[in-house]
Amino acid sequence: MITTDICIIGAGPVGLFTVFEAGLLKMRCHLVDYLPQVGGQLSEIYPQKPIYDIPGYPTINAQELVDNLMKQIEPFAPTFTLGERVEVLEKKDDGSFRMVTNEGTEIQSKVVVIAGGLGVFEPRKPAIDRLEEFENGKGVAYFVKTPESYRGKNVVLAGGGDSALDWTIYLANIANRVTLIHRGETFRGAPDSAEKVFEMAKAGKIDLILKSNLSAVKGDAHLEEVIYVNGHGASESIKADYLIPLFGLTPKLGPIADWNLEIDRTAIEVDTFDYSTNVPGIFAVGDINTYPGKLKLILCGFHEAALMCQSAFKFVYPDQKLSFKYTTVNGVNAF
Amino acid sequence: MITTDICIIGAGPVGLFTVFEAGLLKMRCHLVDYLPQVGGQLSEIYPQKPIYDIPGYPTINAQELVDNLMKQIEPFAPTFTLGERVEVLEKKDDGSFRMVTNEGTEIQSKVVVIAGGLGVFEPRKPAIDRLEEFENGKGVAYFVKTPESYRGKNVVLAGGGDSALDWTIYLANIANRVTLIHRGETFRGAPDSAEKVFEMAKAGKIDLILKSNLSAVKGDAHLEEVIYVNGHGASESIKADYLIPLFGLTPKLGPIADWNLEIDRTAIEVDTFDYSTNVPGIFAVGDINTYPGKLKLILCGFHEAALMCQSAFKFVYPDQKLSFKYTTVNGVNAF
Ligand SMILES: Cc1cc2nc3c(=O)[nH]c(=O)nc-3n(C[C@H](O)[C@H](O)[C@H](O)COP(=O)(O)OP(=O)(O)OC[C@H]3O[C@@H](n4cnc5c(N)ncnc54)[C@H](O)[C@@H]3O)c2cc1C
Ligand SMILES: Cc1cc2nc3c(=O)[nH]c(=O)nc-3n(C[C@H](O)[C@H](O)[C@H](O)COP(=O)(O)OP(=O)(O)OC[C@H]3O[C@@H](n4cnc5c(N)ncnc54)[C@H](O)[C@@H]3O)c2cc1C
Repeated sequence: MITTDICIIGAGPVGLFTVFEAGLLKMRCHLVDYLPQVGGQLSEIYPQKPIYDIPGYPTINAQELVDNLMKQIEPFAPTFTLGERVEVLEKKDDGSFRMVTNEGTEIQSKVVVIAGGLGVFEPRKPAIDRLEEFENGKGVAYFVKTPESYRGKNVVLAGGGDSALDWTIYLANIANRVTLIHRGETFRGAPDSAEKVFEMAKAGKIDLILKSNLSAVKGDAHLEEVIYVNGHGASESIKADYLIPLFGLTPKLGPIADWNLEIDRTAIEVDTFDYSTNVPGIFAVGDINTYPGKLKLILCGFHEAALMCQSAFKFVYPDQKLSFKYTTVNGVNAF
Repeated sequence: MITTDICIIGAGPVGLFTVFEAGLLKMRCHLVDYLPQVGGQLSEIYPQKPIYDIPGYPTINAQELVDNLMKQIEPFAPTFTLGERVEVLEKKDDGSFRMVTNEGTEIQSKVVVIAGGLGVFEPRKPAIDRLEEFENGKGVAYFVKTPESYRGKNVVLAGGGDSALDWTIYLANIANRVTLIHRGETFRGAPDSAEKVFEMAKAGKIDLILKSNLSAVKGDAHLEEVIYVNGHGASESIKADYLIPLFGLTPKLGPIADWNLEIDRTAIEVDTFDYSTNVPGIFAVGDINTYPGKLKLILCGFHEAALMCQSAFKFVYPDQKLSFKYTTVNGVNAF
């Protein structure tokens, strides 16, 4: 059981900066994110793209901004649970909160900050029978969380985007054999990654199977075989310990919809005084919230986090008075 | 007469970033500031101090942030009127605005954004008779706007802070003779600047007069003589073309108070939907505004500027529809 002052659901840029504003007020934070890495949309969707509207940065790459935010919050030593989704959120009798993830991790906190962006990124799954049977450690995965777990194994990847290309290249040095199955002949991902994959296939370092579609999975307690239909309509089979379909992610509001919060379609309604939700002690910041005039911009989430922490303070330190101080005057130990 | 889409009163960090958000929506900006340089409080009060709560910067010096903001808005080529205070703000019959500065500069715009911070920084003036007679180009000044205008002149500076020290050092190379009068024996300014001034005095490069107070100014059409009372209570006189008392600045709401805006003590009341004031077409962002939950932080002003520009657009382009685009996708030419 993890206990903390503030549990932040979502480790995108806004969740990360919340740690900073909370830290200035001496509130400890724990973050949970379903993705295996921090950074939310920035790290998952456009890590190498430049952003132009971060104030004070004429231009900054998305991943660089995430790295800088991680450095900025370092003094406050936040803790993380990555690769898990918060499923349950309950208010306890003493006013504190209890959360449980899909993997059973329990977290207890005085304040909950939902910085869930567009929701959890759910992998797009191929429409194949029996796929679910092999999920959760039995051979089928939609993210590569720990590359080392594929050492010496036969791995089949599927997809045509950057993730499929990048992991094919990466795992080729770890796995016994990597096979990439793609329904097209060309790739959507970065041209230099595609070129590299074609070269590796030519050199016999990987197997590249084009114009083909996954059709079935076989195995007993664990995955053993992947079946696909090739360009001529014939079924073929590969012995495989793992199948990793990388067909992209779609954000879904997910469990957040079940927590008795006031929701306007895909966003949580908040009061702009402090970005509080209808449940006292639960706040929502960043892309996940909505209010009159809302813009889904990173810089807006930063402002929301700052105001929100002023109210969160009252839940964490009910008997103390908060005085406002500039960081310039007091550094990061303002309080 | 200067005409523009948006006239921004105040070139502090928030006024500057407003140019960026406006520029993304193809609105041109002109900025007016009473200080001789841009950057507001950051450049005037704490240029060399580190700020820790600019998101994405674990630490950044105030002046560096201002420089970065100037670089960020460069693509939008804003224009500036510095060293002048907007005195008059009138709404014309066609809904546009007319402004006049203390030096008679006229500006016409469709939208007015007040980013006036704590107000205009008014110099603290010594209590001396006839001082006003020599203001406005006749020998007495409270800022050094154009150092070159002191070339070959006899200049008396007064004060004990950084401005007094820095300008003494700087003007020593330009003026015929620089005298610094200070009522104490030690300086409040940076120790190395103080040391430098003591050395220059020892080497005979400047005249340093300690434990003394300004008592009178004399002259006909122009300043000719500065009188002070020395440490023994005796009056002494110096021939002087210029007297520059640098006793610090105090912010005053100033003319802003006379523009029929709803004001809560020292701040303009705004609606958080778009940071509009009670007068349609006039917005207020940054330290100058107030609303429930307001924090006087730089990062909050950035958010306010972004939301504000969405509404400003309707005044500048009444017939066009605004569509929201990420800078990552469209660069700084989003619209
Ligand atoms: C291509 C593209 C370009 C963009 N360009 C810009 C730009 O130029 N400027 C700009 O300001 N913005 C831009 N944006 C938008 C910007 O990325 C978002 O505003 C920002 O990511 C929002 O940050 P956040 O922290 O609120 O949420 P996110 O970044 O979406 O992070 C939310 C995180 O919460 C996690 N999560 C959700 N629910 C749960 C749960 N139940 N349990 C565990 N974890 C959960 C998700 O996995 C996710 O990682 C762009 C977006 C895209 C897609
Ligand atoms: C010592 C100190 C440390 C600080 N540390 C931090 C920190 O760590 N983090 C943080 O976020 N904030 C900090 N602040 C506060 C921060 O500086 C302000 O929030 C910020 O400057 C506000 O920006 P602004 O653009 O709204 O206004 P300002 O920077 O105040 O600029 C307003 C400008 O408007 C001009 N003006 C006003 N009226 C008129 C007029 N009628 N005509 C022409 N010009 C006019 C003024 O001359 C001024 O230059 C600190 C402030 C101080 C003094």
